Amino acid sequence: MFKSIDWTGDSLRIIDQTQIPERLQFRDLVSLEEVYQAIKRLQVRGAPAIGVAAAFGLYLGLRHKPYASREEFLQDLEIQVQYLKGARPTAVNLSWALNKIQQHLKEHPGSPSELLEEALKMAQQILEDDRSRCEAIATRGAALLPDEAVVITHCNTGILATAGIGTALGIVYKAFEQGKRIHVFVDETRPILQGARLTMWELQQAGIPATLITDNMAAYAIKEHRIALALVGADRIAKNGDVANKIGTFSLAISCHYHRIPFYVAAPLSTFDFSIPDGSCIPIEQRDPVEVTHIWNKLPITVRDANCWNPAFDVTPAKLITGIVTEHGILSPPFEESLEKINNKVHPN
Amino acid sequence: MFKSIDWTGDSLRIIDQTQIPERLQFRDLVSLEEVYQAIKRLQVRGAPAIGVAAAFGLYLGLRHKPYASREEFLQDLEIQVQYLKGARPTAVNLSWALNKIQQHLKEHPGSPSELLEEALKMAQQILEDDRSRCEAIATRGAALLPDEAVVITHCNTGILATAGIGTALGIVYKAFEQGKRIHVFVDETRPILQGARLTMWELQQAGIPATLITDNMAAYAIKEHRIALALVGADRIAKNGDVANKIGTFSLAISCHYHRIPFYVAAPLSTFDFSIPDGSCIPIEQRDPVEVTHIWNKLPITVRDANCWNPAFDVTPAKLITGIVTEHGILSPPFEESLEKINNKVHPN
Repeated sequence: MFKSIDWTGDSLRIIDQTQIPERLQFRDLVSLEEVYQAIKRLQVRGAPAIGVAAAFGLYLGLRHKPYASREEFLQDLEIQVQYLKGARPTAVNLSWALNKIQQHLKEHPGSPSELLEEALKMAQQILEDDRSRCEAIATRGAALLPDEAVVITHCNTGILATAGIGTALGIVYKAFEQGKRIHVFVDETRPILQGARLTMWELQQAGIPATLITDNMAAYAIKEHRIALALVGADRIAKNGDVANKIGTFSLAISCHYHRIPFYVAAPLSTFDFSIPDGSCIPIEQRDPVEVTHIWNKLPITVRDANCWNPAFDVTPAKLITGIVTEHGILSPPFEESLEKINNKVHPN
Repeated sequence: MFKSIDWTGDSLRIIDQTQIPERLQFRDLVSLEEVYQAIKRLQVRGAPAIGVAAAFGLYLGLRHKPYASREEFLQDLEIQVQYLKGARPTAVNLSWALNKIQQHLKEHPGSPSELLEEALKMAQQILEDDRSRCEAIATRGAALLPDEAVVITHCNTGILATAGIGTALGIVYKAFEQGKRIHVFVDETRPILQGARLTMWELQQAGIPATLITDNMAAYAIKEHRIALALVGADRIAKNGDVANKIGTFSLAISCHYHRIPFYVAAPLSTFDFSIPDGSCIPIEQRDPVEVTHIWNKLPITVRDANCWNPAFDVTPAKLITGIVTEHGILSPPFEESLEKINNKVHPN
């Protein structure tokens, strides 16, 4: 299976996702600025993949610089962390990875070159951890899918969105690998069309039957095609279980609720932001209106000077979510309690 | 105000809606075949406008033919009626207009040339009736909109969709004309993007503030922008009030229901199909998958050979509908009873 993000030993190799499905083009990123731009321009996207990219971006920004002292190193680190955090504001994995590295380096004794080595190690660890977390999520989630399950998904949460096999789509891969017959309905996911471009491409590569629909068909598809459940990813989860995810997730969750079918979110525990009590506090990235008024900056679809709204994410309230599949278990409502139980299991006193 | 469909005395003049918003191009249709193709290719669309076009299409198909007898005329009429009905299966106005003319001509005494004259008169009557029905719907519906109302709509239901000022959008025009400040959120309406292309264009022409969103933003927009109510049109309404309308209407209705905001349908009484007890019996037109896999046959947005589903309409169950604004009054649930009351008022015994 191909890797959408990997460390070559000298550069961060990514698949340029803006080129899919037209061509499979790898890019070797060698500087902080290149990583920042790749995240901002959605060449690398998906909350977990962004976290991994940022970790290596930090290392790339720190290497080859003649730091005179540990203090100077840590000062520059702070600047770069803040800069990278600005690339995309909603996905918490980005700041999670950066904070984790920064915290560790601050506490780690040693010279600038030793700290640099440590930064690389940590980035590699974050990448490896993401891979194994994907595996764990997929295995736990696959148990939710019966044979001949018809599933609906939104956006892209597969190989392209992570360093591993994915979160929500990873569950589909695992169930398929287990011999279950799965059929996936794929929301095209306007405005950027990650479902049409990326998820359809991944599923075609994997030989998993899939049907593309426009986002507004989801409710009718659930009714007409006996869809059993929805599986989506997450960009940030508040303490109470409210989930920020790709715009359109909220609408899909409401349709599932109306049709009384389960709505599952799949995400590593690092997607939780414990500093945020509920979804109303999650910053929602507003993107360029041209993404709505044009298809990929190419084809205008409306009048000139159209006023439009372009939030990249929305917030699905916890009450619409059946369960959150994490690497350590499937959380169920009330999520705060469920989370506590899992934390106690993972880190027993 | 411009007219999207009109009789010139010799031809049916339509605005080619596939060219909006790039250019405002009128076309003069002079034959049955041209009208059939214009309907099929969505150059003329919108349930009421299709009914008007079909009525003139019938006349254009009958004129200039040397019918030897009344019987021959009526035989050919039957063939043409069946042919035109095949252009689009869901909108009932099409068959409603054709049946009405056919019935009338069968019962009308006279020679082929007299029947031909009668066919033209009826087409003109249907056009005039549509205009006055739009006015009546708009006036009744405008009472639902308070000053500073934020409204959401789907697809196009305005001047382009009818011979008059429209149905759902006609209500917006009327309220605006009455001096109310109205702001319209416009679903882009994939796959054909009638909202982005046509509704945004109409509202811009009229100077009514509008915000374009992708369809999957509707639920989040209702929450974030304090949308007061939804206004949509209808292509066919079953006896119990189930409404077939542009794909995505069902999803929008579910989101309104979830947020407890009113969801209104605006349509002339001719949109009711009393032969159909509920929505499950409405035939849903399945269109070419290329509409989903490409933007306007131009820009591919997914993998080659993508499997996809492309129903042009969906069915919104009556229980999600707050009211149906007709030319004779606003129906409320249970719709069958409400309809009976209005029918008694319109045609008292």
